[in-house]
Amino acid sequence: MIMVSVMYPNGEGSTFDMAYYCKTHIPMVRQKLGTALKGVSVERGIAGEAPGSPAPYLALCHLLFESVEAFQASFTPHAQQFEADIPNYTNTQPTIQISEVLQV
Amino acid sequence: MIMVSVMYPNGEGSTFDMAYYCKTHIPMVRQKLGTALKGVSVERGIAGEAPGSPAPYLALCHLLFESVEAFQASFTPHAQQFEADIPNYTNTQPTIQISEVLQV
Repeated sequence: MIMVSVMYPNGEGSTFDMAYYCKTHIPMVRQKLGTALKGVSVERGIAGEAPGSPAPYLALCHLLFESVEAFQASFTPHAQQFEADIPNYTNTQPTIQISEVLQV
Repeated sequence: MIMVSVMYPNGEGSTFDMAYYCKTHIPMVRQKLGTALKGVSVERGIAGEAPGSPAPYLALCHLLFESVEAFQASFTPHAQQFEADIPNYTNTQPTIQISEVLQV
């Protein structure tokens, strides 16, 4: 399995509308990706390692796919629509990473 | 539930021994945290968003706990031992984030 991590950086003046993200953006992504999407999780950053320190990212999203090929085949046709929705919930640009999920 | 994300940054000269991490470090963490640790996943960074672009992080680790308090109570007594093991598998310093896992 591969995981696509979408990480919205924290910083002065950064905004993130979690209600819109969870109720509108993620359902749209889920509907467009269909059965290629094997799992999705969303997290709200609350702190760094030290209690009370700022979280490096305002929000994290993890999307699971069978393979890089399955991700690209399902995601690429909708990438423009997904990106066009970003300004509706944040003024940040996400850091995106593709990772291989290991057995531990 | 809360998720503690431990993210090892990629960069020129950065190293990460995934075999040591999965076979020695994570089992040690799992044993020390005991039942407070509700789940763990490890990912190896393979790319950024664009095919062939470098992954922002060499490795990601996600640890699940019931609450921030459960994380701190189980983690803090062993934090020094966990940190002392880091040079055994990487020359990087991880970015750490505590997040709230949302229902989507």
